[in-house]
Amino acid sequence: MEHDLYGEGPLLIRDVRLESGTVDIFVDDSGTIAAVGDGVGRMARSEADRVIEGNGAIALPGFVNTHTHAAMTLFRGYAEDMPLQEWLSERIWPVEAHITPEDIYWGTKLACAEMIRAGTVAFSDMYFFMQDAARAVAEMGLCAVLSYGFIDLFSEEKREAECRNTEAFVRSIRNMGNPLIKPAVGPHAVYTVSREGLSWCAEYSARLGIGIHTHLCETEKEVRDAVAQWGKRPVQILDECGILTPRTVAAHCCWLDRDECALLARRGVHVAYNPVSNMKLATGRALPYHWLKEEGASVTLGTDGCASNNSLDLLTDMKFAALLQKFAWNSPTILPAGEALSMATSAGARALGFGNGTIAPGEPADIILIDSRAVCNTPEHSVTSNLVYSCSGSVVLTTICHGRVLMHNRVIPGEEEILREASRAARKLVERTAEERGPPHFPPDV
Amino acid sequence: MEHDLYGEGPLLIRDVRLESGTVDIFVDDSGTIAAVGDGVGRMARSEADRVIEGNGAIALPGFVNTHTHAAMTLFRGYAEDMPLQEWLSERIWPVEAHITPEDIYWGTKLACAEMIRAGTVAFSDMYFFMQDAARAVAEMGLCAVLSYGFIDLFSEEKREAECRNTEAFVRSIRNMGNPLIKPAVGPHAVYTVSREGLSWCAEYSARLGIGIHTHLCETEKEVRDAVAQWGKRPVQILDECGILTPRTVAAHCCWLDRDECALLARRGVHVAYNPVSNMKLATGRALPYHWLKEEGASVTLGTDGCASNNSLDLLTDMKFAALLQKFAWNSPTILPAGEALSMATSAGARALGFGNGTIAPGEPADIILIDSRAVCNTPEHSVTSNLVYSCSGSVVLTTICHGRVLMHNRVIPGEEEILREASRAARKLVERTAEERGPPHFPPDV
Repeated sequence: MEHDLYGEGPLLIRDVRLESGTVDIFVDDSGTIAAVGDGVGRMARSEADRVIEGNGAIALPGFVNTHTHAAMTLFRGYAEDMPLQEWLSERIWPVEAHITPEDIYWGTKLACAEMIRAGTVAFSDMYFFMQDAARAVAEMGLCAVLSYGFIDLFSEEKREAECRNTEAFVRSIRNMGNPLIKPAVGPHAVYTVSREGLSWCAEYSARLGIGIHTHLCETEKEVRDAVAQWGKRPVQILDECGILTPRTVAAHCCWLDRDECALLARRGVHVAYNPVSNMKLATGRALPYHWLKEEGASVTLGTDGCASNNSLDLLTDMKFAALLQKFAWNSPTILPAGEALSMATSAGARALGFGNGTIAPGEPADIILIDSRAVCNTPEHSVTSNLVYSCSGSVVLTTICHGRVLMHNRVIPGEEEILREASRAARKLVERTAEERGPPHFPPDV
Repeated sequence: MEHDLYGEGPLLIRDVRLESGTVDIFVDDSGTIAAVGDGVGRMARSEADRVIEGNGAIALPGFVNTHTHAAMTLFRGYAEDMPLQEWLSERIWPVEAHITPEDIYWGTKLACAEMIRAGTVAFSDMYFFMQDAARAVAEMGLCAVLSYGFIDLFSEEKREAECRNTEAFVRSIRNMGNPLIKPAVGPHAVYTVSREGLSWCAEYSARLGIGIHTHLCETEKEVRDAVAQWGKRPVQILDECGILTPRTVAAHCCWLDRDECALLARRGVHVAYNPVSNMKLATGRALPYHWLKEEGASVTLGTDGCASNNSLDLLTDMKFAALLQKFAWNSPTILPAGEALSMATSAGARALGFGNGTIAPGEPADIILIDSRAVCNTPEHSVTSNLVYSCSGSVVLTTICHGRVLMHNRVIPGEEEILREASRAARKLVERTAEERGPPHFPPDV
């Protein structure tokens, strides 16, 4: 039985704990939850090709990471604790200039392994060579919304090229015919994309009914520059270009004012809160969560890329999410644990269009099993509080995405090769960059 | 060989990586590092009763947690996201009123297991029933500085009792004759201890040459109230009473001004920075690390108790430490990864008087082994950055304290019983508290 666990067919998950008590979960051939309940195991046993014995593990909907740049795992730890401009121009841009499709493939596989390990089943990614990212995601079995980062730098020629790149990318994803991988358009931000570019993205995405992934109000400078240059704040610019829709994920949103929170709520935009990245890059202000909540906006959770996090562990980031709000807005009661968990499950799943992020019949079987006997879950006054404030991603035993078992008892098939090849790709990339730049000035520090 | 690993005798740790390269480490019968180097294994093999094969794991000095209340692990997740006064009076104080020495014993054992799992080898604890805490620590094999929380609430009668309690506690620890467990005096804070109480603690600790563990400038209210009531800020009060010494650990220090940072540096006080607790309880200001660093003060790292963290994982807290500084002081370059790691190793070890927190001949063998093949350590542009920004405590494979192996390949002997008994103690404690208070209003939320 164990041998076929990572394969196909109906799946029975026995003896796991939900809020409602101990249950069995039956997943049908299509990866959809068919039944959840006490007696399900006895009835479904004969139908199941695969059985997971939960042994009292806690079952949760898998986590959803609504903002990352997956392949940047290759840059994990490459450049730290530097001023933003120096970090970009001296370190990140030079290596990005040397990155190959093969690097993107291995970097994305590494990111997927890391996400699976920490219970993430779906993510929203923006980067380049995204066909190669898609190939990696498909092999790993995760759900993803992928977008090609559209950056025209206010040049008409570049804009035309970016439109064609976006169309080619979207076509290639649609041609894959993988229901777990969806394309989105990725207009990078108001300071890198012209109005015409933003409008094209909005119209194209509306025509195809696909998502939009963008950055918004990350820094005060972004807001100040927009006002100085165009007399308008970034939210107004995006809104005038049609970018703010219920299919849109807007990352960061640290510098929204109250009216902008209300507008995002009215437009149905999904905000991706990235607490770790915001702290690491010193954005100077935390997401105005209280306003967004009061206005009824959808708030989801993102890690951002590994160059500004440097991990893809949403359990750790839930703790950062809740604690940054308390510190920044001077309130120990803001963003309680349960809301942090919802951000990373139900809100995220709905934002990306992968079900409702709950364990119920008819939902996709995006389920993770949590070690209830770990130190971080002891004692058990509150499972939710333990998960958000005490545990990290290592408490995840099993990760299931649309019925496919991606990790069981902390084993991900093929992980060793991924670590080896991603390491090699990262090392070669840095060597190539160094050769062109003269003597290397970046010895690893240990 | 594996069978005796947790026992006594000279220990050889083979094939581990230090900054200087791959080495073997030989630990003598007394738990002291006798030799570190390339050929050590061949020479020492016959002398070693125990051998650990490192297989290329990264060796680090064990972590040191300079401020916690260990037994509060029993309250993990018991009360969250509440205003401070309500949290204390409605939730924490009622259960603390029912706590027994046996609870303290199991709570401290649970804390020790959690610390061992995350690579912590030494800690500074302040709570009550500390003889029972000491018994737990001794069994678990960690190094600790233990203090009885001295709180006289400005009553002469209570003060006399607290002096006697402190003396009895110190005597009992000294009678244990365990070189890994040291007593300290624990004057709680300026707002809970009279001047006479503070002065007594200072004189008593000086006479015996033992440490002092106190809270200082955690909240703005503490500073404001002190100025309103006594016309002096807390640092001046502690200094006048003789509390600020090179044997002193002062926890929190969020609201220090620049002159106070200079004074703490001159006095040789060790500051315990508690970033997670400060964020969770919304202290409103982060430690002024830049001033302390410029003045040359010793800054160490603490988790605080599980009721305000809720974990004892110093690797996660190093990330919080570095990122909170960047966010709060609006600088992406403040507190780089290497400084966060030093806080939790060398600075902490020196603060508590357990060696220098380095892996070198003559130092106590407080060594942890890190899984270099984990996702969080891939790729390896910087080991330090990966540890601080990417890994959590689960990356620790092996924890060795003064030559005693406390965990190997993530196995802690007896852990299952500790989890079971601590769970039981926590449940019973809540039940006892509920019985007295009428119908319970705290069903676990899952």
